[in-house]
Amino acid sequence: MSGINKKAVVLLSGGLDSSTVLAIAKSNGYEIYAITFDYGQRHTFEIEAAKQIAITNNVKKHLIFKINLRQYGGSALTDDIDVPLNRCEEEISDGKIPVTYVPARNTIFLSIALGWAETLDVSDIFIGVNAIDYSGYPDCRPQFIKAFEKLAGLATKLGSEGGNFKIHTPLIKLKKSEIIKKGIKLGVDYGKTVTCYSPKSIDISCGKCDACVLRLKGFKEAGFSDPKAYADNKF
Amino acid sequence: MSGINKKAVVLLSGGLDSSTVLAIAKSNGYEIYAITFDYGQRHTFEIEAAKQIAITNNVKKHLIFKINLRQYGGSALTDDIDVPLNRCEEEISDGKIPVTYVPARNTIFLSIALGWAETLDVSDIFIGVNAIDYSGYPDCRPQFIKAFEKLAGLATKLGSEGGNFKIHTPLIKLKKSEIIKKGIKLGVDYGKTVTCYSPKSIDISCGKCDACVLRLKGFKEAGFSDPKAYADNKF
Repeated sequence: MSGINKKAVVLLSGGLDSSTVLAIAKSNGYEIYAITFDYGQRHTFEIEAAKQIAITNNVKKHLIFKINLRQYGGSALTDDIDVPLNRCEEEISDGKIPVTYVPARNTIFLSIALGWAETLDVSDIFIGVNAIDYSGYPDCRPQFIKAFEKLAGLATKLGSEGGNFKIHTPLIKLKKSEIIKKGIKLGVDYGKTVTCYSPKSIDISCGKCDACVLRLKGFKEAGFSDPKAYADNKF
Repeated sequence: MSGINKKAVVLLSGGLDSSTVLAIAKSNGYEIYAITFDYGQRHTFEIEAAKQIAITNNVKKHLIFKINLRQYGGSALTDDIDVPLNRCEEEISDGKIPVTYVPARNTIFLSIALGWAETLDVSDIFIGVNAIDYSGYPDCRPQFIKAFEKLAGLATKLGSEGGNFKIHTPLIKLKKSEIIKKGIKLGVDYGKTVTCYSPKSIDISCGKCDACVLRLKGFKEAGFSDPKAYADNKF
């Protein structure tokens, strides 16, 4: 089905995963309502990237939602804690929850997306969570998404009137290299995305943080070269 | 058990219900971390009330968390939609979702409370939802709370390490009059609370909105007089 009435709210961080999700939703015929969170993250380059991606993709509406999670802190992404650098894949994927974990972040973001979706009368929400390459984040697991979907039905007017929200997670079981292959097929301009935790600018990533390491490795495995510029690139 | 290590996050709006919940948590020996949301509500009198209540109750910390839900609107409490006035109890409790429903509000507030609780290493969260007098709000039902509790376990570091969050809802099955009786027994100063949707000031409530009507009726049934001043009081 592709019709003007098929609408979706897409969580768009400006990174590789969420930009791929946006392209997937669009290719499935959804009119896109993108939401980006300005949550007090370490840098605003990814918000700038999200804006450009939203424009390029001609989304119906792009909401930059301000919610300052520094109000309670507790993470390297919102506090003045150093992010780890130069870790190899085994160290990154050690099963422990990384310091970049932001307490309850996906729960908060999905809740706000849910509120916006309800206001727009939209019942499809897309989020780029991934349980493979970053299994340390508890709020990226399939069982978390299932539980949120159930909650969404109980929490809302739509749900209490018999409707259902669907949380789409097209990347949840994909490896980074598979995500990249899919995105390239759909024409995602990965040069515009910002993945890095400590970028030098919107165009130059560090190449040393966990996010850069996993991204570069993904491109290598996918057999593509990353169009992004890196200050340091061992791949 | 009453010990210095027993801590709870309490959602405190500044209204009658949440102030009673705070008193209940305190009487159960919890050290209180109160959180109040400055969410773009129609008036800030309730936030001022929450501040006073937090001080009077000697809470350990009071976080006023800013999150502007007007960024997407969709409710009489955050948009410029008129709140209904002079409705009788039957009209208020008609089972329909009222225009004062804020999409996904309790889901968003509980998520943020959860994030703060996780940061504080607290696993007890108290919220004054009530399924009796305001059954129109979907996110006040016991099954919603149960679903959120499950989600909280899956969403967090504590949960994924085998811990559990408990969402306490001591008022969920109480009538307004029973809440008031309990609060008076615990010494809650209801003159300090703000329940009204359209108060004239922090001290004077309208007496005509749904919230005032239910509160006044509750006091009447409980056999107490409401210490609050009302511009209009038919009870």
